[in-house]
Amino acid sequence: MDDFLTIYESELTEHVLPFWMRHSLDREHGGYFTGLTADGRVYDDRKYMWLQGRQVWMLARLYNTYEPREEWLEASRLGADFIRRFGRLDDGRVYFSLTREGQPQGLQRKPFSECFYAMAMAEYYRATGDALARDEAAATFSVIEQLIADPARLGRPVLAGSLRMHSLAIPMIMLNLLEEMRGILAPETIEAKAAACVQAMLRHYDPQLRLLREHVGEDGGDSLEAFPEGRLINPGHSIEAAWFLLHYAAAREDQALQARSLEILEGSLEFGWDEAHGGLLYFKDVKGFSPAPLEHDMKLWWPHTEAIYALVAAWCATGEQRYADWLQRVHDYSFRHFVDHEHGEWFGYCNRRGEVTHQTKGGAYKGCFHVPRALLFSVQALRRHAASGAELKTV
Amino acid sequence: MDDFLTIYESELTEHVLPFWMRHSLDREHGGYFTGLTADGRVYDDRKYMWLQGRQVWMLARLYNTYEPREEWLEASRLGADFIRRFGRLDDGRVYFSLTREGQPQGLQRKPFSECFYAMAMAEYYRATGDALARDEAAATFSVIEQLIADPARLGRPVLAGSLRMHSLAIPMIMLNLLEEMRGILAPETIEAKAAACVQAMLRHYDPQLRLLREHVGEDGGDSLEAFPEGRLINPGHSIEAAWFLLHYAAAREDQALQARSLEILEGSLEFGWDEAHGGLLYFKDVKGFSPAPLEHDMKLWWPHTEAIYALVAAWCATGEQRYADWLQRVHDYSFRHFVDHEHGEWFGYCNRRGEVTHQTKGGAYKGCFHVPRALLFSVQALRRHAASGAELKTV
Repeated sequence: MDDFLTIYESELTEHVLPFWMRHSLDREHGGYFTGLTADGRVYDDRKYMWLQGRQVWMLARLYNTYEPREEWLEASRLGADFIRRFGRLDDGRVYFSLTREGQPQGLQRKPFSECFYAMAMAEYYRATGDALARDEAAATFSVIEQLIADPARLGRPVLAGSLRMHSLAIPMIMLNLLEEMRGILAPETIEAKAAACVQAMLRHYDPQLRLLREHVGEDGGDSLEAFPEGRLINPGHSIEAAWFLLHYAAAREDQALQARSLEILEGSLEFGWDEAHGGLLYFKDVKGFSPAPLEHDMKLWWPHTEAIYALVAAWCATGEQRYADWLQRVHDYSFRHFVDHEHGEWFGYCNRRGEVTHQTKGGAYKGCFHVPRALLFSVQALRRHAASGAELKTV
Repeated sequence: MDDFLTIYESELTEHVLPFWMRHSLDREHGGYFTGLTADGRVYDDRKYMWLQGRQVWMLARLYNTYEPREEWLEASRLGADFIRRFGRLDDGRVYFSLTREGQPQGLQRKPFSECFYAMAMAEYYRATGDALARDEAAATFSVIEQLIADPARLGRPVLAGSLRMHSLAIPMIMLNLLEEMRGILAPETIEAKAAACVQAMLRHYDPQLRLLREHVGEDGGDSLEAFPEGRLINPGHSIEAAWFLLHYAAAREDQALQARSLEILEGSLEFGWDEAHGGLLYFKDVKGFSPAPLEHDMKLWWPHTEAIYALVAAWCATGEQRYADWLQRVHDYSFRHFVDHEHGEWFGYCNRRGEVTHQTKGGAYKGCFHVPRALLFSVQALRRHAASGAELKTV
């Protein structure tokens, strides 16, 4: 059994953060480059707002909870200043992409740029005490709620035959965001909204497979099973949801929810693991049809980082060997296929056989976020656990 | 050297069309199922408008130019009635997807559903003499021109930093559509507009690689090379464009354009062919960066069907052995990887190694179109050539 605490801490501080600190900071125009090749050259200089917000958050979080290094706070400010200056429309919506200089280029019909903007401002406020950042976090949170309540505001046509379905992504990200809103929204507001998110997420639970389906109908369950959307499983998403729920359950000492979260984690791993080649498949269909996305059988980095942290959390919470065994398996796969100690940070995309398909470390959807977040959270959980004096049962 | 005429005719009539005639016709609600598994079961019963229009066109085209089988005309009518009843908005736009029963479900911010609708009505008019279908083709053509002239009508935000770029897809599909508009628009209108499309397409020409780039700046050339979009090559698209240009050149006996089209065909094949595993890659970057689409190294059926017909056309036009050699190579790859004589029609998606990744014959983007069109056009070209008495130089 590997010494995960030592491995993850050195991975974070010696291989992952140095990559981003060295290659992503745009000292000329502000913000972060994420379109970076394997060795850190810029192949696309645009500023993708999901990743601008996420990197502001990540750096501020490191500063706030790991070590108050001035360079992290300063790098967080480089992004925060940029997105506050260029990232938003007058109505509070947040662009998807900007030119290197900050001119708006893309706007999605999804509310996720807004979510990462709010997350960024919340953590940046905690790092700096900047009350305006706090207000922006709160205001953007309110915009997000309006967008979710009225998708027409996103520019999505609501048509007579549109599937009436719920996406796991929405309550998931809202639950995660609410965890970030402590000190910004009133505790009782957070509590009520988070409880509603948990209920909404659990309506996606599939009792046979013990995981969360990506889309369910108005009544939950399998009412959408005639449609590919209703049959779709994104194992990485279900695993990420499991640790969001584990956090929620732990904070409230909710044993039943903890047990359900652990079931979801295990069910997702069992269903998503590729017995032929190892690794977690990107998409599966509950009835065994081929999922529509062309990349369905690829192995992406983030389901693996989410699984690593979820398993660390499960193991620390229970001491059960099954989570340690799964952790070792996911860890071995990840470090064999995604890790790059030559240049730092992880590759993002492998084919089913585990061969790297993209000689990049980032792009429009990958930046300084999933890898360092999972490593930081794992290090912190393992440290807390060690400090508690409890012994982890390992072989 | 294989007897391509015989092979393609039996593939078309014994293996491909029977699949669609057997499995795709929705006798209950009209229109066509395209969400079909490898053996023809419906896994998604929605009606995708790209493919509804394309199948109406394909069946009417077979009826008009191959053999006036009543069953093809009747099946074409099944789709034509359905899309005319349910497919359009009041402003002439065409939905992307409908429920099985015809309720609108999706609307794209692209003008392609409209293009396939116009194509369908044009060919259906030639099959039936239905003057209303002719008028619908003309009216939809006019809507398409307005959408292209004013992309804001598609609901796409035009932002200050938006890349000012031209997509090959637009003049390509317009050139193809104008070829279909004979007898519907005035010949001099077609001639003027088609000439403009050809000029627009040729601005995508890359003289080093001898192919068409997917996106160019306002001045053509490599002015967008700093952006992934400007470096992107879709070899199948460039190959398809080559035969659109070959058709145009042949009809006008334009030798210079024929030569350029043949260069584009050869350049695209040379750049797009995967020397390691065979087959045409889906996307490449002219500078060797990894293209952003996760599926960039997959092998899709349609670049191969387009290459087959383009090479048949090139071979018939020139008698040059190099095209016969390429045809044999693309043919062998396609018949080894995509063809399914157990159930008919072709698989659509293979990974880089040529292993089928989707146990389907259709979906939202694959239906009764690329395979039968390439086979029909190849059969017709080879027949015309044989009838002309010219001898093809073959080993």
